[in-house]
Amino acid sequence: MIHEFKLIRRVEFCETDMAGIMHFSNFFRFMESAEHAFYRSLGFSVTLAREGGFKGLPRVHASCDFRAPLRCEDEVEIHLLVREKKTKALTYDFIFRKAGNEVARGAITVVCVDFDPATRTMKSGPLPAIMADNIEVAPPEKFPAKK
Amino acid sequence: MIHEFKLIRRVEFCETDMAGIMHFSNFFRFMESAEHAFYRSLGFSVTLAREGGFKGLPRVHASCDFRAPLRCEDEVEIHLLVREKKTKALTYDFIFRKAGNEVARGAITVVCVDFDPATRTMKSGPLPAIMADNIEVAPPEKFPAKK
Amino acid sequence: MIHEFKLIRRVEFCETDMAGIMHFSNFFRFMESAEHAFYRSLGFSVTLAREGGFKGLPRVHASCDFRAPLRCEDEVEIHLLVREKKTKALTYDFIFRKAGNEVARGAITVVCVDFDPATRTMKSGPLPAIMADNIEVAPPEKFPAKK
Amino acid sequence: MIHEFKLIRRVEFCETDMAGIMHFSNFFRFMESAEHAFYRSLGFSVTLAREGGFKGLPRVHASCDFRAPLRCEDEVEIHLLVREKKTKALTYDFIFRKAGNEVARGAITVVCVDFDPATRTMKSGPLPAIMADNIEVAPPEKFPAKK
Repeated sequence: MIHEFKLIRRVEFCETDMAGIMHFSNFFRFMESAEHAFYRSLGFSVTLAREGGFKGLPRVHASCDFRAPLRCEDEVEIHLLVREKKTKALTYDFIFRKAGNEVARGAITVVCVDFDPATRTMKSGPLPAIMADNIEVAPPEKFPAKK
Repeated sequence: MIHEFKLIRRVEFCETDMAGIMHFSNFFRFMESAEHAFYRSLGFSVTLAREGGFKGLPRVHASCDFRAPLRCEDEVEIHLLVREKKTKALTYDFIFRKAGNEVARGAITVVCVDFDPATRTMKSGPLPAIMADNIEVAPPEKFPAKK
Repeated sequence: MIHEFKLIRRVEFCETDMAGIMHFSNFFRFMESAEHAFYRSLGFSVTLAREGGFKGLPRVHASCDFRAPLRCEDEVEIHLLVREKKTKALTYDFIFRKAGNEVARGAITVVCVDFDPATRTMKSGPLPAIMADNIEVAPPEKFPAKK
Repeated sequence: MIHEFKLIRRVEFCETDMAGIMHFSNFFRFMESAEHAFYRSLGFSVTLAREGGFKGLPRVHASCDFRAPLRCEDEVEIHLLVREKKTKALTYDFIFRKAGNEVARGAITVVCVDFDPATRTMKSGPLPAIMADNIEVAPPEKFPAKK
């Protein structure tokens, strides 16, 4: 069982905006990148998911609090922690750290859905076994105090 | 005094992802687009801001709840409502509607800062007069009930 | 028969980079936006295409020459001109103008393909009737001299 | 003297579009990422550049030919080769390979400019010493035959 994952990313030039800092929307892309790398570490690919019986993990909630900016070429650690696990949904917290200091903290809730291409509708369903069997909620002491 | 604004956007092909829907990070970009169009309607440009005495409106919080997907070429109404006004900060709610139906609801909090290019640091300061004098909190009845 | 189309876009804050200008990759997104709006003007949607017999218009070539930068909130005219029409392919030129002055010029070549979801392969095929019947090459005098 | 550089990137979910493949505009972002990583390998940062005497490397030309699509989580090698070196400009070729096979080939020409924040104008100038002294044109045999 696994309850956390860390990904290191370097901020690209194209991810900055005219204020000279990483555009805030890219924090959400970084969270998703860490989540997908977490799945790969379990041997699970969001790409393969789309070909098998279960089809997707749409986001139903996303949020982020920003404390300090990230700049071009900054190395940032994205620390994923499993906050909540339900039959059909998972909530992750993400701590962004630059040189050990927290710069942002976010959260994403995903639900597992089957997607019917014919009707183009989604229907929620249980997490696939590889996720249900390997992902657990992180213990409370793993979550750093809010700053 | 003004407390709301509506922007219509069409979802572009490049804003979709392999799930066939608009990538969730673009909801945050749409919120910011509506916010900046709201400022333009007041005669205020985020671009001019960067040249004058006050320098920026970084986001300190952003969140969104997603109820239904948006697809390529969908027309979406982004309804900005002023939720809270402080000396140095503003919080906006954003209701996303497709064909009159709410598909997502988000919020952004911005703080007014002066940016010193020499030290590359930001310091919070009061809202510029054009914002302080023209923006007011929307009355409670303007906010639709949470679904 | 139609051989040109004009789209007006305003540069968004999130489309700029730390150099204070629109990131060059977004010129390619603007070209595609103009191309898709051109199709909509013919009553043809790239979204519907994906549900019918013919499936996609992948790009096989894209290029752009940049003469002057675009800045946040600039209004830019994207002028699409049909450069070449083949049985299975179309080439468009795009002239970007700000306040009447050319700032960039690009080109895109698309081929019409059928996409087989089972094998995940693409095979080129003739343009759909709505494109073949309505799109023609622009006369030479429509193309402004290279600057 | 150095004339080539290789960067490995994994295609992110948010870089795909509804056709299920990487959006073509992201090939241009990948080229720039490889270019900036190339500069870092020389001890030169595009970020530091903006603080010193010389200020930027805007693109004057970018192009790409696409042979095969990239999909989510694909690992792609971006092979930068120095095609041309002038006093004030550099042209790079970029070969994209997936599992050893070429999927795309692009080119970018950058010019060195000084940026005057007061007048917001750019003026071309000679390459900084760190680039002029360390970058050389790749020998002809390094460029693979066009496919």
